[in-house]
Parts: sequence; C-alpha cells; structure tokens
Amino acid sequence: MGAPSDRTDAMSPSAYPQLLAVFTKLHHFHHLTAMASWDQSAMMPPKGNEARSQALAEMEVLIHQTITDPTLASLLDAAEQAPLNDTERASVREMRRQWALSNLLPSRLVETQSLAGSRCEHAWRSQRPANDWNALLPNLRTVISLAREEAALLADHFGTSRYEALMNKHEPGMRCDELDRIFADVKGWLPDLVRKVMNKQADQPVLQPVGPFAIESQRALGLDVMKLLGFDFEAGRLDLSTHPFCAGVPEDVRITTRYRDDNFLQSLMGIIHETGHARYEQRLPRELVHLPIGRARTMGVHESQSLSFEMQLGRGAPFLSLITPLVRQHLGTQPALQADNLARLCTRVRPGLIRVDADELTYPAHVILRCEIERALIEGEIEVEDIPALWDEKMKTSLDVDTRGNFKDGCMQDIHWPMGLIGYFPSYTLGAMYAAQYVATIRAQTPELDQKIAAGDLSPVTNWLEANIWSQASRWEISELMTRATGQTLQVSHFRKHLEHRYLAA
Amino acid sequence: MGAPSDRTDAMSPSAYPQLLAVFTKLHHFHHLTAMASWDQSAMMPPKGNEARSQALAEMEVLIHQTITDPTLASLLDAAEQAPLNDTERASVREMRRQWALSNLLPSRLVETQSLAGSRCEHAWRSQRPANDWNALLPNLRTVISLAREEAALLADHFGTSRYEALMNKHEPGMRCDELDRIFADVKGWLPDLVRKVMNKQADQPVLQPVGPFAIESQRALGLDVMKLLGFDFEAGRLDLSTHPFCAGVPEDVRITTRYRDDNFLQSLMGIIHETGHARYEQRLPRELVHLPIGRARTMGVHESQSLSFEMQLGRGAPFLSLITPLVRQHLGTQPALQADNLARLCTRVRPGLIRVDADELTYPAHVILRCEIERALIEGEIEVEDIPALWDEKMKTSLDVDTRGNFKDGCMQDIHWPMGLIGYFPSYTLGAMYAAQYVATIRAQTPELDQKIAAGDLSPVTNWLEANIWSQASRWEISELMTRATGQTLQVSHFRKHLEHRYLAA
Repeated sequence: MGAPSDRTDAMSPSAYPQLLAVFTKLHHFHHLTAMASWDQSAMMPPKGNEARSQALAEMEVLIHQTITDPTLASLLDAAEQAPLNDTERASVREMRRQWALSNLLPSRLVETQSLAGSRCEHAWRSQRPANDWNALLPNLRTVISLAREEAALLADHFGTSRYEALMNKHEPGMRCDELDRIFADVKGWLPDLVRKVMNKQADQPVLQPVGPFAIESQRALGLDVMKLLGFDFEAGRLDLSTHPFCAGVPEDVRITTRYRDDNFLQSLMGIIHETGHARYEQRLPRELVHLPIGRARTMGVHESQSLSFEMQLGRGAPFLSLITPLVRQHLGTQPALQADNLARLCTRVRPGLIRVDADELTYPAHVILRCEIERALIEGEIEVEDIPALWDEKMKTSLDVDTRGNFKDGCMQDIHWPMGLIGYFPSYTLGAMYAAQYVATIRAQTPELDQKIAAGDLSPVTNWLEANIWSQASRWEISELMTRATGQTLQVSHFRKHLEHRYLAA
Repeated sequence: MGAPSDRTDAMSPSAYPQLLAVFTKLHHFHHLTAMASWDQSAMMPPKGNEARSQALAEMEVLIHQTITDPTLASLLDAAEQAPLNDTERASVREMRRQWALSNLLPSRLVETQSLAGSRCEHAWRSQRPANDWNALLPNLRTVISLAREEAALLADHFGTSRYEALMNKHEPGMRCDELDRIFADVKGWLPDLVRKVMNKQADQPVLQPVGPFAIESQRALGLDVMKLLGFDFEAGRLDLSTHPFCAGVPEDVRITTRYRDDNFLQSLMGIIHETGHARYEQRLPRELVHLPIGRARTMGVHESQSLSFEMQLGRGAPFLSLITPLVRQHLGTQPALQADNLARLCTRVRPGLIRVDADELTYPAHVILRCEIERALIEGEIEVEDIPALWDEKMKTSLDVDTRGNFKDGCMQDIHWPMGLIGYFPSYTLGAMYAAQYVATIRAQTPELDQKIAAGDLSPVTNWLEANIWSQASRWEISELMTRATGQTLQVSHFRKHLEHRYLAA
C-alpha cells in the first residue's frame, strides 16, 4: 500500500492496484462464506446451525467493513480519474457498483439480515414439510421487515421504487416499468397459448415412466449427462439438498439435486439446469475471477445459462434423442423411455403447484405471481400474513390451481423468502427470455443446429455461450452484452416464438 | 468497547468482557477455517485447491492480525490484575497462552506457512500413491524450513529447545527431557514385550475374515458403532478421506474414515478412534466453547480420548463381544466374525509398515521413530533428504521391517509433515499412556468394568471421561488435570501394566 498521501491523489497511478488488493481480499472472504453456505445447505447437521449462522454473520460484517472502509471511496475516485485501459475501466465501474450497494447499508443491518435469514431458512427446512405456516410467520416477518429497511435505504439513494432497488441487486439495469411491460406482454398471450397447447396435447398420448428408479442409477445418469454437457468434475461436485442450487466459487462449483424414486425426470432436468449455472461459473475468465468484473453479469443472465441448458437444450427433442441411450442404460428399457416419449414428457403442459417442477409454459405464471406478491410486500401494500390468501387467489386466477391450506406446496415452497432473497424472482423469467434470444441467434448462424445436437455436437451452443456470455463476465452492461451477443436488447418476441414453435408447431 | 482510556487501566473491570468479544470473533473465524479445511480434505475437487489455499491463508493472516492487535496486550495485562473468579482467571491464562504463541510469529511467516502446507499436502495426496519422494522433496524442504524458522522464534522466547517449542504448541507443559525419560522407559521394555507376545501368539490360531466386505455395509456398521459410543449425529458427520481425521468445530464435528473391501477392521477401528476424538469435542462445555479455556487441554489428551475408545475399549474382548452381533448383522456370519476371534484379530501383534494400521504394542515404536527424525530435522542435525535413509535404518532396528525404496508406506505415509505439523507425534503415545491411566482409575472404582462393557453399559467409562476430562476442557494445566482425575501425574507404569495384562495374561 502506498503512503496515505498517495491515496487521495486524484491521478494516482497506484489507486487501481490498491483496489485490486482490497477486492482480492474480499474474493478470499467470499470463498469461505460461499463454501460454508454450501455446506450449511448440503452437509451440515442441524445442531451446527447456530454456530454456522454466527460465523457467517461475523464474516458478512467483516466483508461489509472491508468494502465500506473510508479509504475505498477515495481510491475509487482516484482510479476513475486515472489512465486505465478498457478492461480496467469496466473493472472500476463494477467495483463502484458493488461499493455503492454496500456503503448504503449500515453494518448492523447487514449482520441482522444475515442472522435472521439463516435462522428463518433453517427453521423453514422442517416447517415446510410440516405445512406449518404459523411457525414460519414470525421469522418471515422479521426477514421482510429487514428487507423493507434495506429497500428503503437503497431506493432513497438510487431514486427508484423500493422493489426496483432490491431487484437491481440481482438485475442491475432492469426497471420496474420495463418489467411491467414484459409481464403485461406475457400475460397478453400466455393464457391463450396454455389453453391451445393443453387442447393439442389432450390428443397426444404420453407414457408415464414406471419407477421405482434407484437413486444410485439416477445419480449415475445425472453424472453422465453432466459430463456430456461439459461440467468439469475436477472443479466441482454434485450433491444432495432439499432445494437444488448451484453454489461454491468459480474455481470449485457445487451443484445439488434431490431425487424421487418415482420421477427421474425431475432430478435429471434439475441437474441439467444447475449444470448450466455451473458451466457459466466454471468458464468465467479466470484472470478476472477475483474481481467484480469477473462475475456473472446479472442473475437473469445466470438463469439464462441454466435455462439455455434445461429448456432450450434439455427439453428439446434433439437433445433428448441424444441422451436416450444413457437413460436406457441406467434406468432400463421400458417403452416410456424412448426418445419421442421423453420429448413429450419434457414438454407436457400441466398447471401445477410447484414452481421448480413447472413446465416451461406455465413457469412464467409462477414467477409473475411471486413478483407481484413480493413487490406489494416490499412496497408496504400488504403484510406477511396476507400472503396465503393472495397466493390462493392468484394461483386460482392464473393457473386454476387450488392451494388453500396447502402452504408447503404453496407460499412456503421456495427458499427465497425465508432466506431474505427478495427481488430475485424476475431473473428467472428474464433468463428464459435471454436464453430464447441466444438460441434464436445461434439457430440463425447454424441452421442445422437440431441435427448437430442430436448427433452429439453441442459446440454451436456452448461455443457461442462461451464466446458471447461466459468469457464476457461483467465487462459490459446488460443491454450492451445482449446487443453485442444477439444484435438487439431483450425482445420478448423470441421467447414467444420459441414457445409457439416448440408447443404448437411440432 | 470502552473508551481507549479504560483499556490500559490496570484494574479495569471491562478488560475481561472486551477480551471475550475478541475471542468470540476469533471463534467465528476459526469456524470458517475449520469447515473449509475439512472440506479441502473430504470434499474438494483438485482444481479448487489453489483458491482454497489462498482463502485459508487470508483467514490465517486475519486471525493472526486479530490476536496480535496491540490493544490485546494491555487488555490481558488489565484482566490479569482485575478481580475475576477462578474460571475467568483460568480463561485469561489460556488467552494469554494463545496470544503469546501468535505474537511471536510475524504475519508473513504465518501466511507463508499456511500456503506452503496447503500446497505440499495437496500435492502429497497424489505423490504418495505414486511413491514419488523426489516430487515431494522440494515442497517438504520449504515446509520444514518454515517450521525451523517458527521453532527458532518460539524457542528463543520460551527458552526451550526448538523441538520442545514446537511440541509445546500441541502439548503445553511437556518437556523434551521428560519425553526422553518416557521414551527411554518404553524402549527399555517394549522390544522384549513384543518378542514375548509374538512367541505367545504364534501358538494362538486366528481366522482371517474373508472379504470382500461391501463398503456400504461397512459404513452402516460404522454408523451403528458410532451410535453405541454416543456420537451425536445431530451435531456431526462421518465422511471419506485419504487419511482419517476428526475436524470441524465442537458444535459440528466431522470425522472421516477410508474403506478397504478386504479389511473391515481397519476402518471400524479407525471410526471408533475418531469417535473418541469427536465425543471430547461434542461434550466440551458449551458455555466456554468460544474461548481458549473451552478447548481440548492438549493434543495428547485429545489422543487419549481416541485411544480410550479405540485401544482401551475398542480392542478389548468385552467391547468386541458387545459389538459382535452388529458385525455379523452387517457383514455376515463367517466363523472369523466371532467375538473371541475378533478379539484375537484386534490384539494381533505384527510389526508392519504403516503407523495408523499398527497394533497397540508396536505403535509406540512408530511414534518414537518419527519424533527422533523430526526432532533432528528441527534442531538442524539432519536435512529433509536424509529422511529416507534414517527411516529405513530405524524401521529395521526397531521393528525389523524393510522400507527401502518404499516411500509411500515409509516416510511419505503420514499427512503431518506435508502439512507442516511438526512436534505432534509425541501426543499419540502420551495419549495412549493417559488413556491407560484413566482406565486403571476407572477400573479401581468399578471392578466389574469388563462385565458392564460386555453387557452394553459403557457409562463407567463415558461418565468418568465426561466428568474428569470432557467437562474440564482447559480449566487446569495438564499435570493438575491428571492429578485431579487420577490422583497422580503421568506414570508410564499404567501403560506398561495394561499392555502386559492384555497381551500376556489373557
């Protein structure tokens, strides 16, 4: 570190290297937090939780103290004035973004949120199977109250609505009015499309695979498919958890799944989904991985990777015909395990209770419902106790599904709210739209895409993602990233066309 | 925190609470380090190691900075003058001990040691199976050179020899001259005892169990035996690793084992051993667990727990008759799996290559050899390249075993040196001696001990350990702990009597 007088020199050439040192230290702290959090969800026995939560909260505070150190403000100012190359300039922009988010929040709030989220989420793990909404309620009230406090601080500073402020933590650059326009667009054609598809599918017989499918065989199949998709097992693992996720660090990516012995597709598609997240992480540019510029662009872009894998590739007939021999090798040769039947199973549209089990077509309805509820919660228009009734009403209206009294498969089903993750849900549907736009671009460049995929050549997709998304990390703002990659900013029309083609044309 | 002027007030009543806050923070940092280290050995894929090592080194530095913060010196001074109760006074004594060890070492050395140890140990994992001593050599040279640097700093301050200084990190209060006396005692009677026992056993037939024993069945047996021994599965796990160990934190204890399908006893005895370590950790007084006083007294005392479980209990005929039904339930009913044959197998004396597989009787010879070599290394009497020849010579002399050219089962077999853990080996044999002394004490109080154990009542052992060792943590210096528990300081005679009784009298 230079002498203190260097630090505030507005043209100091040493400001950027000093910032690198601070963010490298933060990268190391994040590593320990990431692994301890993964362990908490995938490995930790229950009595370990109190100590783990305290240790994680301590680290949150330390990370927060490090990024709110007063010297950082002047280092950022100095670096923004210094002669830097384009990458360095983008790097400072992302440092500033992360710095701003942290510097708006007091330490006390960060620590309290971490503790409250850990406690609520841990208790939720047993409250959900017990369908015990009343037990969740007080914890969740605390979590939401803290999220409101955070949202108010961020919104005041950025001049956005409170919900937009939280959403921008995950989806920087997305505005609530744009989201309104996107969701209104979807709501305009989705119900009719769902109806048409369900009518069409009523005449298409589908064979249900008959289990039980041994967990070990499902796991072996999952590992084989991960290999096919290029997951680097020297730099990651597959484990078990209540709720599938992708965690860890880019150098060591941990994905999880869960198995049901009567339904192997749920786990297999979950694994394909998380493998999409994992490949993004594993292929982020290694030389930047310790810096904010080296991270995933937005959570929507992250979801676009998992959905490129699960939805665009994984549930498409070409990919399913490619993996059918693996499915039959591991799970047997019953008639339901034929390529065309698997394709029908993977595109079967049936409104249901559970978001993560939803088909591609009804999924956006689950997302829109959650966004509307959490937005109302954060804006103070409703309270936590209003959630179940709203949930019931919206599920009835949008998907004609009855959730009354069924909290565990209703408003208690997702881990997001218990852990305090608010404003994340939009990213799922934005991700589905980004993914559709990527693959439309790839298909225009490679008209024989389906034949290549069926023949085992996934390189048109993975090479394109590597060149246009993975290697770009956070060099560009989202609109620039999309324009460079696809020639245009986000257009809902690609998503709609993809759905109409897959579900009505075939 | 009080105002700065409070801190140096020699009678400040706030010094101790301020120390509590610092050591609680350190406890949280240690938690993250402990879990990341466990993961590194039990879960982490190879490409994760570089990032993990850097993150751990960063945390080592932070822990070191925290405990070397200049305010701590005056807080400790003040607390030592303040009116405290006995527990608080002992707590400050242990804080001072930990503080002194850290304050003698510069940050740079701590960080370099952490990095060098991680790298060397990680590479050793593949170098050992490849028998590649030459590949290990440069890494190990670095590790030893850093250990010498550390030893010199500690020895200069404490006025001890360099080896004693390193040993005292693990075994505070043990002197090299006492260790010499203990080892000379053992060397005086052990060779003759080994000979006598081998002659006696030559006439005692033993049936070798015939595998393969499925790994899953071995694991199920191990879990059942852990339950029997009181392992709390709500606060710990059993996993796999190259080298079995007990790690994690008292609130969440992680033990590991490894399986060979031709030898279930190796894994089972390893599990019993680690369960001894684990119960000590799990039963440390919870209200002190965040403080130095709440930790294990010495590593020798820690080993005495694993050896109370594995050697005193686990390889004794009463315990083996108790678990024989479980062994037969999981592994089948072949004649070798009868109680009397298992007891013969578990007490079979046969000099061999591997310390962790050694029988109870030849084990001290493995330890003495390592202590002699590492002591000579640290004192600068030999260099790293001298190890193999010395190893060969000492194995030949002490156990009549030929290790020439067999590095992987020779001087590369243990994880200790690659990870920079020097001066730890004495604790194994001290632990065996402590354990023999405990059980002699227990047996004097409970003459019907063997009958109780065979009948499934382990409480005379576990209640005694809980009252005299586990619950005492580091309240007392080791000599006081032993005197309170057994009426005398460490006496080698209990160990010798135990061995003579078990191996010659039966």
